[in-house]
Amino acid sequence: MNDQQLREVLAQVREGAMSEADALSKIRMLPFEDVGYAKLDHHRAIRHGMPEVVFGEGKTPEQMVQIAGRLLPHNANILMTRVSPESMIALREAYSDIELLETCRVARFWRDKSSQGKGKLVVMAAGTTDMPVAEEAAATIEVMGTVPLRIYDVGVAGIHRLFGNLEQVMDARAIVCCAGMEGALPSVVGGLVPCPVIAVPTGVGYGASFNGLAALLTMLNSCASNVTVVNIGNGFGAGYVASLINRG
Amino acid sequence: MNDQQLREVLAQVREGAMSEADALSKIRMLPFEDVGYAKLDHHRAIRHGMPEVVFGEGKTPEQMVQIAGRLLPHNANILMTRVSPESMIALREAYSDIELLETCRVARFWRDKSSQGKGKLVVMAAGTTDMPVAEEAAATIEVMGTVPLRIYDVGVAGIHRLFGNLEQVMDARAIVCCAGMEGALPSVVGGLVPCPVIAVPTGVGYGASFNGLAALLTMLNSCASNVTVVNIGNGFGAGYVASLINRG
Amino acid sequence: MNDQQLREVLAQVREGAMSEADALSKIRMLPFEDVGYAKLDHHRAIRHGMPEVVFGEGKTPEQMVQIAGRLLPHNANILMTRVSPESMIALREAYSDIELLETCRVARFWRDKSSQGKGKLVVMAAGTTDMPVAEEAAATIEVMGTVPLRIYDVGVAGIHRLFGNLEQVMDARAIVCCAGMEGALPSVVGGLVPCPVIAVPTGVGYGASFNGLAALLTMLNSCASNVTVVNIGNGFGAGYVASLINRG
Amino acid sequence: MNDQQLREVLAQVREGAMSEADALSKIRMLPFEDVGYAKLDHHRAIRHGMPEVVFGEGKTPEQMVQIAGRLLPHNANILMTRVSPESMIALREAYSDIELLETCRVARFWRDKSSQGKGKLVVMAAGTTDMPVAEEAAATIEVMGTVPLRIYDVGVAGIHRLFGNLEQVMDARAIVCCAGMEGALPSVVGGLVPCPVIAVPTGVGYGASFNGLAALLTMLNSCASNVTVVNIGNGFGAGYVASLINRG
Amino acid sequence: MNDQQLREVLAQVREGAMSEADALSKIRMLPFEDVGYAKLDHHRAIRHGMPEVVFGEGKTPEQMVQIAGRLLPHNANILMTRVSPESMIALREAYSDIELLETCRVARFWRDKSSQGKGKLVVMAAGTTDMPVAEEAAATIEVMGTVPLRIYDVGVAGIHRLFGNLEQVMDARAIVCCAGMEGALPSVVGGLVPCPVIAVPTGVGYGASFNGLAALLTMLNSCASNVTVVNIGNGFGAGYVASLINRG
Amino acid sequence: MNDQQLREVLAQVREGAMSEADALSKIRMLPFEDVGYAKLDHHRAIRHGMPEVVFGEGKTPEQMVQIAGRLLPHNANILMTRVSPESMIALREAYSDIELLETCRVARFWRDKSSQGKGKLVVMAAGTTDMPVAEEAAATIEVMGTVPLRIYDVGVAGIHRLFGNLEQVMDARAIVCCAGMEGALPSVVGGLVPCPVIAVPTGVGYGASFNGLAALLTMLNSCASNVTVVNIGNGFGAGYVASLINRG
Amino acid sequence: MNDQQLREVLAQVREGAMSEADALSKIRMLPFEDVGYAKLDHHRAIRHGMPEVVFGEGKTPEQMVQIAGRLLPHNANILMTRVSPESMIALREAYSDIELLETCRVARFWRDKSSQGKGKLVVMAAGTTDMPVAEEAAATIEVMGTVPLRIYDVGVAGIHRLFGNLEQVMDARAIVCCAGMEGALPSVVGGLVPCPVIAVPTGVGYGASFNGLAALLTMLNSCASNVTVVNIGNGFGAGYVASLINRG
Amino acid sequence: MNDQQLREVLAQVREGAMSEADALSKIRMLPFEDVGYAKLDHHRAIRHGMPEVVFGEGKTPEQMVQIAGRLLPHNANILMTRVSPESMIALREAYSDIELLETCRVARFWRDKSSQGKGKLVVMAAGTTDMPVAEEAAATIEVMGTVPLRIYDVGVAGIHRLFGNLEQVMDARAIVCCAGMEGALPSVVGGLVPCPVIAVPTGVGYGASFNGLAALLTMLNSCASNVTVVNIGNGFGAGYVASLINRG
Repeated sequence: MNDQQLREVLAQVREGAMSEADALSKIRMLPFEDVGYAKLDHHRAIRHGMPEVVFGEGKTPEQMVQIAGRLLPHNANILMTRVSPESMIALREAYSDIELLETCRVARFWRDKSSQGKGKLVVMAAGTTDMPVAEEAAATIEVMGTVPLRIYDVGVAGIHRLFGNLEQVMDARAIVCCAGMEGALPSVVGGLVPCPVIAVPTGVGYGASFNGLAALLTMLNSCASNVTVVNIGNGFGAGYVASLINRG
Repeated sequence: MNDQQLREVLAQVREGAMSEADALSKIRMLPFEDVGYAKLDHHRAIRHGMPEVVFGEGKTPEQMVQIAGRLLPHNANILMTRVSPESMIALREAYSDIELLETCRVARFWRDKSSQGKGKLVVMAAGTTDMPVAEEAAATIEVMGTVPLRIYDVGVAGIHRLFGNLEQVMDARAIVCCAGMEGALPSVVGGLVPCPVIAVPTGVGYGASFNGLAALLTMLNSCASNVTVVNIGNGFGAGYVASLINRG
Repeated sequence: MNDQQLREVLAQVREGAMSEADALSKIRMLPFEDVGYAKLDHHRAIRHGMPEVVFGEGKTPEQMVQIAGRLLPHNANILMTRVSPESMIALREAYSDIELLETCRVARFWRDKSSQGKGKLVVMAAGTTDMPVAEEAAATIEVMGTVPLRIYDVGVAGIHRLFGNLEQVMDARAIVCCAGMEGALPSVVGGLVPCPVIAVPTGVGYGASFNGLAALLTMLNSCASNVTVVNIGNGFGAGYVASLINRG
Repeated sequence: MNDQQLREVLAQVREGAMSEADALSKIRMLPFEDVGYAKLDHHRAIRHGMPEVVFGEGKTPEQMVQIAGRLLPHNANILMTRVSPESMIALREAYSDIELLETCRVARFWRDKSSQGKGKLVVMAAGTTDMPVAEEAAATIEVMGTVPLRIYDVGVAGIHRLFGNLEQVMDARAIVCCAGMEGALPSVVGGLVPCPVIAVPTGVGYGASFNGLAALLTMLNSCASNVTVVNIGNGFGAGYVASLINRG
Repeated sequence: MNDQQLREVLAQVREGAMSEADALSKIRMLPFEDVGYAKLDHHRAIRHGMPEVVFGEGKTPEQMVQIAGRLLPHNANILMTRVSPESMIALREAYSDIELLETCRVARFWRDKSSQGKGKLVVMAAGTTDMPVAEEAAATIEVMGTVPLRIYDVGVAGIHRLFGNLEQVMDARAIVCCAGMEGALPSVVGGLVPCPVIAVPTGVGYGASFNGLAALLTMLNSCASNVTVVNIGNGFGAGYVASLINRG
Repeated sequence: MNDQQLREVLAQVREGAMSEADALSKIRMLPFEDVGYAKLDHHRAIRHGMPEVVFGEGKTPEQMVQIAGRLLPHNANILMTRVSPESMIALREAYSDIELLETCRVARFWRDKSSQGKGKLVVMAAGTTDMPVAEEAAATIEVMGTVPLRIYDVGVAGIHRLFGNLEQVMDARAIVCCAGMEGALPSVVGGLVPCPVIAVPTGVGYGASFNGLAALLTMLNSCASNVTVVNIGNGFGAGYVASLINRG
Repeated sequence: MNDQQLREVLAQVREGAMSEADALSKIRMLPFEDVGYAKLDHHRAIRHGMPEVVFGEGKTPEQMVQIAGRLLPHNANILMTRVSPESMIALREAYSDIELLETCRVARFWRDKSSQGKGKLVVMAAGTTDMPVAEEAAATIEVMGTVPLRIYDVGVAGIHRLFGNLEQVMDARAIVCCAGMEGALPSVVGGLVPCPVIAVPTGVGYGASFNGLAALLTMLNSCASNVTVVNIGNGFGAGYVASLINRG
Repeated sequence: MNDQQLREVLAQVREGAMSEADALSKIRMLPFEDVGYAKLDHHRAIRHGMPEVVFGEGKTPEQMVQIAGRLLPHNANILMTRVSPESMIALREAYSDIELLETCRVARFWRDKSSQGKGKLVVMAAGTTDMPVAEEAAATIEVMGTVPLRIYDVGVAGIHRLFGNLEQVMDARAIVCCAGMEGALPSVVGGLVPCPVIAVPTGVGYGASFNGLAALLTMLNSCASNVTVVNIGNGFGAGYVASLINRG
């Protein structure tokens, strides 16, 4: 549609029906389908070749249901993150084939389960309390075309436990590594594997963990060269980038 | 050598010359060639299939020259980062074929220039003062097998300038994006391109930029899903991960 | 009244009924109408030629109703911000013509709708969750004499969406620009428009957004020269200054 | 030139010499004159109708001289901020009519002294040590077409001193207010005047002033409704916005 | 009692009933009456010549009632701060002559109302929302022997309002000055009066006030020489020190 | 079991049934009993000769009961920290001999009460509100084989009270010292005693205590040489290390 | 002079030579003797009955000499703080009777040595490295009319050393207490003495002392009720307030 | 001497030559030998049975030489930390048998080399740049009676290197573990060994390491139960506590 409008402008220029000055102004305006509260940008999904993603924070159940309704005709897979319990109920009632993952606050339509990645992806969590963030990453990776290997509860204070799983992760194309408290797991994993490690700090911990700030700083200062970092608790972002790497 | 030692232990076990209990203890000990001040770990390079990297901060010129000397027989490409001016001079005198990049404090041996990546990598810098960090990323990417496209001085306050280069970056496999001050460039680029964007905050700015902290927070909070972040000024890390993605 | 008292003092001086020393002391004392819990300062409104503004945080419903009652005889327009739900109900019951804007916690009397500004004002919000802050700014601008153009959901990660609205904002006299997460919108807008941009960080985001601190730092470090900043979530202040610029 | 290129593209479309798809890609690319280290963006000045501004931080004397040389043919007024002492000397030698303001690290060509503003602007400084920042603001305002009223050394701890100057500031169209230490001056001034006050925190102070952070927070939390804030020490930005308000 | 025990030790030494070595150890041990959960230290009150003070935070209603019961026989005036609503009810039921000040969470026995100070004390609050903290200071000052002058709602953004009260504060022996938001009131007052000003930051404000941190920094950086600071919301401490000054 | 598996590998090597390369990979994998949500690591307890410890934060009552059930056959003493009220109830119903310490949120099986330490341990708390943290330390110390001396409510503002207990602590082998607010107790105690002092900051305090950060910094900066620090509120960790010292 | 001008205005009003409206405007304007770079405010000294104080930071030697020259005719005692070494030399050359205290960067004229205080003041320093700050306090106290008792090197880690000096401080009217590192001395002293304690954090310490921030937080959170705090390193302010208390 | 004075007081009491009241006051005063700038506290060493320690920061070469001179007659071992290069030279000239360790800025007299500890101590450093801090710890441990095992350059990013040294550390009585950057080494070591681990964050790292803050937070949040922490760079403190544990 966007292309269509642009082509119309250029057609008008070609036909002499529009001045150059007017054309210049107009071609900077892109079309949107206006739902009122959120301009759905179908183009993003098309541009990136990705499923639609809806950030559920601060949206009402009604809005969530309506947004899903508009997206469904055009998308096989839809990922809704940070979904409130109320929206979970409303979505369940509205759509029978929606999948609700309460632990990680994700709702999704995962209808196209064809594989999109070229290899293996791994999602790690240092402790059981880091699992919600890890599951958000895993749910994201799944709707983007890879079923990741999940390895949970492998924190560095029991480093010998990590080695029981090492063989399985050596051939991954990317690893999402979630950890709270001191957040050292990505450094250790990064020093062992040859692929990119996407570190996700979680808010797990007490006292001077400052809701994930300590883990965040640990990860940013990793002495392993293959570690990059996303925001505290941003399992979605980590899963998204891991999927991009696996599709690239 | 390491393998050799391990094989010797296992051979002794096989031959009954060593008890199981002793073998268990011994196989946990990996051999190192001990220079005294730094245990060079040839295995890391071999494990990751990467050039040797030497972090120059806090090392004396004599140490830098000696480390280079030990690495040269085994490595075609060596990257030395955070090299002091004094070490630059000492390395120049010791090795005629070393390449010194004063702007980004890098010294390197780039003897194997064969291409290792599968596609295009891009290094962006928002302002001219972000160039040293961007150049560290680019120098890293080069010794790892890709000559990246450099696009500098494309900050968001002149967002229209970014579009002049957009076509060139749409097919990159990964983009390293360096920015100081408000650090918004990775968000804008991330919203436009389909590949992973590795954001590098720089210490450029004044007042409340807090030596890169403002840019770091901006990047961590990016609303673009394909952005991950490395430490302030860590061009090397960003280049390293971009190369891994391109080789993967 | 204040002037009257001062004139009385000066009159007494002129008539020799008051010593110079006494006069000096007295003229420093300004009169106030004392409600007990808050000294209403009618003079501020008169001095600035602005509607009365009541900051509702920490005030009881009874206090809010009583303050409104005292102000109504002297003011056509009254803006009450940060109004609690309880105060909303009490105000509704007490005054039939009050307008309640629950989304942005504003209650207002907007009886004089005459235009006071010389041109166009724009209020922008990066995401739908930034709307409450943006609406507080818009509600402020309205009672001060301009109906602003609202442009919402135009965040930088979909920068192409901004361009669809660019033509509309180029002739604004000032723009209020609200954004959470990485808070980059004001920089991008500031680089495109010729008028002052008043940036309002919002608390939207998660993890290392630190309740708006990340967006605040981004905006303070904007490399666009025409950006100034107000406190996190202070839509009122931004709307107030935009109105001053438009009336100036 | 930019317009010319765009017109050529549209002309080619009109003449059928370029396909619509090609045109779409091309019109997103804006031309730049490439100096190598910095893409000078003449369009910004034209777009905003403002003098050229060069941020001198991190630029070599040679670069500064060269940039000035390229800008001079097209601009009557040029403002160079954060100029190093070395660049000052180089600029002095290269250009006889350049004006060097060592106190505030500004170099400028102020050849068009015609008045561009509609009224009065005021620059205030709380203490004598805040003067460099205030002078940067004043120098900016001057090259943008207004000679501001300077009122210095009027800090709040001697609040009675402020009143000696109050009459002079009541009819300003905007006030730039610089203060370090506790940074309370903008709040006091903002409560007295009807125009916008642009607050500039400075790094003056010791101990827990944290290089301007204390003053910055004070200003962001101002209970005066007409105060907006720029970065610590950003006299230029404050002067720029004040000039925009005065020209608007 | 403490003295008695010490005298007994010394008496035993004098009488030869205790060795010197034993005496040395024993005289370091001071007696306490052990309630189990809190060692009541009657000596503190006696040492400082002050009423008993009980910090109510984290104490159960039963503990509060019991502590009051133990203190009442020995003390005319008792001040209990940070009293929970539940403790308020329990104290009311237990003691008919207790005075409950819900606004500032204080319960007190104020039976000796004789004047202990040598002059005037003033308690100021910048806004109505700062009143709870100011009232805690005032309640403290009262039980310590002075009825302070209360001046509330005199913030700096309406600085002219301060002057209406200036004459009344010029002869104070100390001023407690409570302010949230930008916290500038103590600086302004400190610049006008000759006595010590004890500044109390409050948590009032929003966004970047960071629960009183902004006001705290403002006050610590005051350019008025006669300002000292206590913890955020610590009205009690400020009132205590003001009383000491007035009794000294 | 772990040893068994390793011995099997080595046995296969000895018997020629496994290649050396395969053996190398396998011996890095350690066995775990997989409960699904948490890999119980019996080896840790065996390695350290310590009771089992379960961190209760974020675990459901069902999980807590199940984990306890799996651990009980192998362990005499089990310590569960940060136990939620719901888990307390569930554990009580499931196990009649469990001991619930609500104040410090600990549940424990303390069946082996034999003494494991070589001397005296002391747990100190500066105020009564620091007691929950101190009790977590004491409960930990008890299940590890020492009944510590508890000395509570001995804060530095009543430093003379500390001396009444000084004799008792001079022969301790280690002291756990819990304090909130200004957190100065460990410094004072450390300056008096010859043994290691393990300082535990607590979140007690108001305003600028920042939930324990102030006390944490105080303790880290202690000028007493024998003070080390654990996380805010980490009574368990402090008790654990004190026990190690006493057993060492 | 100021009074004179005001009297002239009022005289003109009395004589009918000035309208009331004009008088109102004029009486708000206070006269200043304008040196150009700093408005010397002789009235402050007169108002507070204090010696003149000059803050030397950022002032050139020439300015310092000139300011001293203007103040000398009107003031017996002048205190100059934060004096640079260059200014020290210039002041020495210009004034033979100036006293230079290099350790604490103070220059002063102390010609009127008459006693102004009513009792004893004490200045304490925890360590020898805190002495410069303590000496700034002492030098301030001296020119304000009291020779304070200096007690240095009495840190809390050697708390028994404090008791050797306790008798001397029990009858002080106020105590200035300087400490770096953990900054606990004011809490301990405050718990022992009955007078106000003015705590001065110093930047002494390493690592997580954060240039005095740790000590500042410690002092703000003091559980001793008689402690107030000034800025990091602000010995002058502490000495000033102590003097006010002693004169009050 | 102290004891002597106390005995004299008690003797006088016994003999009736001193009143009880006077005795009480006097026994609180401990004797000091007053050098003028620092009260040397011989008792501390005697109390703790430890060598004398002198903190060299901020002390002049003359002071260092003089302090050493006073301590030498009474102490076999003296440790001077944070010694400036100038003091190094002065100490060398004054004392032929002093040992200067430039790397870690330590000067020491290590004349009594008898073993004081009961077992093995280990000092670890993650990287070569952490060595100065590790060496300060080792130098401290040596003068206190144990020659520690040094294991350097065993960071977590090369975790396999740690295992080569694991056998050596399993029987240590305490381990000092120094690490900068992400500071994860103590967690990993702590999870493997049964003894206390004293973690020392170092300032090594760049960008968001914030001079050791990141490593400090990592260590405080360690999920290994046997880790305690000292201040950034405080190798001395860590070595001191490790020695106490080994002597205990």
